[in-house]
Amino acid sequence: MDSAETYQQLCNYVRESALLHSAASVLEWEEQTYMPPAAGEYRSDQLSLLATMSHERATAPQVGEWLDTLADSDLATDPANPASAVVRELRRSYDRQTKLPLKLVAALARATSRGQQVWTEARKENDFAKFAPYLAEIIKLKREEADAVGYTGCRYDALLDDYEPHATAAEVGPVLKSLGESLVPIVAAISESSQKPNSEIFNRDYPIDMQTSFGQAVATQMGFDFRSGRLDVTAHPFCTTLGPHDVRLTTRFDTTDLRPGFFSILHEAGHGLYEQGLPSEDYGLPTGESVSLGIHESQSRMWEILVGLSRPFWNHFYPKLQDAFPQSLADTPLEEFYFAINESTPSLIRVEADEATYNLHILIRFELEVALLEGDLDVDALPAAWNEKYRKYLGIDPPNDAMGVMQDVHWSAGMLGYFPTYSLGNLYAAQFFAQAHEDLGDLDGQIARGEFAPLLDWLHTNIHQHGQRYPASELVQRITGRPLSSEALLKHLKDKFGELYRL
Amino acid sequence: MDSAETYQQLCNYVRESALLHSAASVLEWEEQTYMPPAAGEYRSDQLSLLATMSHERATAPQVGEWLDTLADSDLATDPANPASAVVRELRRSYDRQTKLPLKLVAALARATSRGQQVWTEARKENDFAKFAPYLAEIIKLKREEADAVGYTGCRYDALLDDYEPHATAAEVGPVLKSLGESLVPIVAAISESSQKPNSEIFNRDYPIDMQTSFGQAVATQMGFDFRSGRLDVTAHPFCTTLGPHDVRLTTRFDTTDLRPGFFSILHEAGHGLYEQGLPSEDYGLPTGESVSLGIHESQSRMWEILVGLSRPFWNHFYPKLQDAFPQSLADTPLEEFYFAINESTPSLIRVEADEATYNLHILIRFELEVALLEGDLDVDALPAAWNEKYRKYLGIDPPNDAMGVMQDVHWSAGMLGYFPTYSLGNLYAAQFFAQAHEDLGDLDGQIARGEFAPLLDWLHTNIHQHGQRYPASELVQRITGRPLSSEALLKHLKDKFGELYRL
Repeated sequence: MDSAETYQQLCNYVRESALLHSAASVLEWEEQTYMPPAAGEYRSDQLSLLATMSHERATAPQVGEWLDTLADSDLATDPANPASAVVRELRRSYDRQTKLPLKLVAALARATSRGQQVWTEARKENDFAKFAPYLAEIIKLKREEADAVGYTGCRYDALLDDYEPHATAAEVGPVLKSLGESLVPIVAAISESSQKPNSEIFNRDYPIDMQTSFGQAVATQMGFDFRSGRLDVTAHPFCTTLGPHDVRLTTRFDTTDLRPGFFSILHEAGHGLYEQGLPSEDYGLPTGESVSLGIHESQSRMWEILVGLSRPFWNHFYPKLQDAFPQSLADTPLEEFYFAINESTPSLIRVEADEATYNLHILIRFELEVALLEGDLDVDALPAAWNEKYRKYLGIDPPNDAMGVMQDVHWSAGMLGYFPTYSLGNLYAAQFFAQAHEDLGDLDGQIARGEFAPLLDWLHTNIHQHGQRYPASELVQRITGRPLSSEALLKHLKDKFGELYRL
Repeated sequence: MDSAETYQQLCNYVRESALLHSAASVLEWEEQTYMPPAAGEYRSDQLSLLATMSHERATAPQVGEWLDTLADSDLATDPANPASAVVRELRRSYDRQTKLPLKLVAALARATSRGQQVWTEARKENDFAKFAPYLAEIIKLKREEADAVGYTGCRYDALLDDYEPHATAAEVGPVLKSLGESLVPIVAAISESSQKPNSEIFNRDYPIDMQTSFGQAVATQMGFDFRSGRLDVTAHPFCTTLGPHDVRLTTRFDTTDLRPGFFSILHEAGHGLYEQGLPSEDYGLPTGESVSLGIHESQSRMWEILVGLSRPFWNHFYPKLQDAFPQSLADTPLEEFYFAINESTPSLIRVEADEATYNLHILIRFELEVALLEGDLDVDALPAAWNEKYRKYLGIDPPNDAMGVMQDVHWSAGMLGYFPTYSLGNLYAAQFFAQAHEDLGDLDGQIARGEFAPLLDWLHTNIHQHGQRYPASELVQRITGRPLSSEALLKHLKDKFGELYRL
């Protein structure tokens, strides 16, 4: 059998695995949206069986044999051939999954399941000491995971790689650090500014029917195709893909504040546009999948923040928004609205943070999880270290651990190495957006006319259509001609908040 | 290994199969309710893979070996042991599936897929000749299926058994025939009666929100548990079970007529109450599953017709219905409403038929499909035979084949032997309901007070809790002390329509 045939067999096999995996995604989506409450236990059993079957397929020795056969083939070694990226990424994923001893996988599943339960209780009771031994166990197991998976730089790289393939702490760390150092004085200046927006409009009446139809209309205008997708309501917004023409967005609505519902729709639609832009004929193969969590987040944050919180965007949409909610917004001029949605202030909770302060929350977590993993910080000393960094970077004192070190689910779920992808998303987004401005000429004008096709085409050409053809760092270099840097994001923040807060 | 261990292994295996099968049911439900239009093709691929996996599991030689091992065990041969029913039904299902040659399964899949496509077109074009050769091919293959599966009485039995296990044409045929003979003069008398209801109220305004909440409130009062179920909207109403505590009902609404929405909810909730009443600890095993399509339909028809179209039911609910739709119903007295929902008239279309005429539609189909299968009727002669029977039994002339012999999807989908289960449902329902009246004393009074718990408890004790412990004919004998008969149904129809139409 020649390597073309082997490659075909491998691809057929992986596509069939995607059928099974996406079936599980339908069950997960339904669990979050419509499933009746008493059905949860059996749904877990269904998902557990499907996960086991998927894992067995993914780690089948046959896959390793196909990959070995292809390793030195022309097909896999010619970077000009997209098949080389398919083989590279399938190898990466196969190695990662087969290198983990089943015993460790089971121990991690137990520790993180229990960890999340205890975290929920401990957070409610504001009792970090209760959670500490479970977190310590999770960190011990994550170290073992990193050692089993292997790394060349530091242990942290092995975990980061699970969310941001091919990235390393050595590459990402300095960028996050330099971003943070520049943000601290900006955030402080905003805090001290005498300019304050009037956010009283976010305690008015916004009927949910109208929020839904307005949000859907905007997502449609951005280019999201509702023939191949839906919008539903869940406790926490998300985007998930159930098939090559099936992208599901969710949001949550607040009847007195349109921001949570609307900006979640923009954020998730940003993810959804990426998913809808991936080549559907390669669905299930690496060339039909997103590059990394960071690149994915760059798409959601670009639409939510760089487009959706911009003045040109509201030049176009604000009159329509006023028409949709005349009782709540007719008396508020555009400039007042624009300042109100862009209010910035140091705050305790990451998920509620504005774009100027957000990345400091991430830097704190990144520094702490690296220290925990490398053994430079004990779990018992974590709350003090957390509070110290909040004082230093954001100038605020967490009043307790529930609103401090225990606010996020990630560590209790074993997701160490995940947080940086949020900031990477913001960095990539700004760097791409600056390049799009250069390439498209009058991007602001297009947005102000409600024309989103040029930007979406640009994203499709430069990012979406390639799937995992290029790792994130290579993609950034290809598109912008330079490596990842904090420059574009800092320029954007300085310009925008400098003007708003008259810094 | 002793037989108890073998039995345990078999049960574990079958329960795991149910996880996979019910996962597919989630995907099917979602396809009908919420899936975006462009996602259909991939959904078919997902379902096709899951069906293949389920079939492989169900026909695995290991299952046959377990069943062989258990065949002569105490466990399987003691009728007092519920395990005997589990082994009996798993054997029945295993034999049926393994006896069908894969070549025949594939040929049937092709013929019925194509058959349905051609049927859709031919019906639209009113061109039976176009459909005829495809129907002939399907009947030829269904004969082969019957021969492969085997039978002791006649070929038809092998097909009927797929929908109504253990039933035979020799047992069912005479009951349907005697029912039909008695119905013909009743239906004729109704037609000739000078009494006519005023159905003008079914062309008024019934907002869908209110229809939904009213229907859900009634289903809840009947005992349907919405913590373990839902109601959604689909093109065609159905009930499906996605897990031991997860029963989904659907309906469709007409904004000017409350009947389609409301009575579909009652019908599907009747199915749903059966599903919620099955022993959840046996979910996936025969003792946790419904007896047959006929017994299932007896539950839906009892709640829809015998309860939901009764005077006591509306004594209780009509004031509430008037409160829900005051503009449309405030001026209509109860008696007028009661007559209007019970209007009976010979009609062309089975799915729109009232309870007095419905079973004649079934008898016609039953007689024709037996004749087709046994070779007593050629497909070319089918339309003439159909029209002849509609004249004879219902006194009406189908104006064309689209509204005549091509109105149902069943035959084009290879579902021969399915139709009788509709009438069996009506017959079982009436026979059970008469027995419930005897056992519960004042059932009419309970219903008139909106107390449905006694009836539901009776159904649970006598039917639901047993799963497939007893075949349908044995169940009827156990509960009512006599075999299946048309007596109870005829008495009900004569009493009810005799009074309404003053016969």
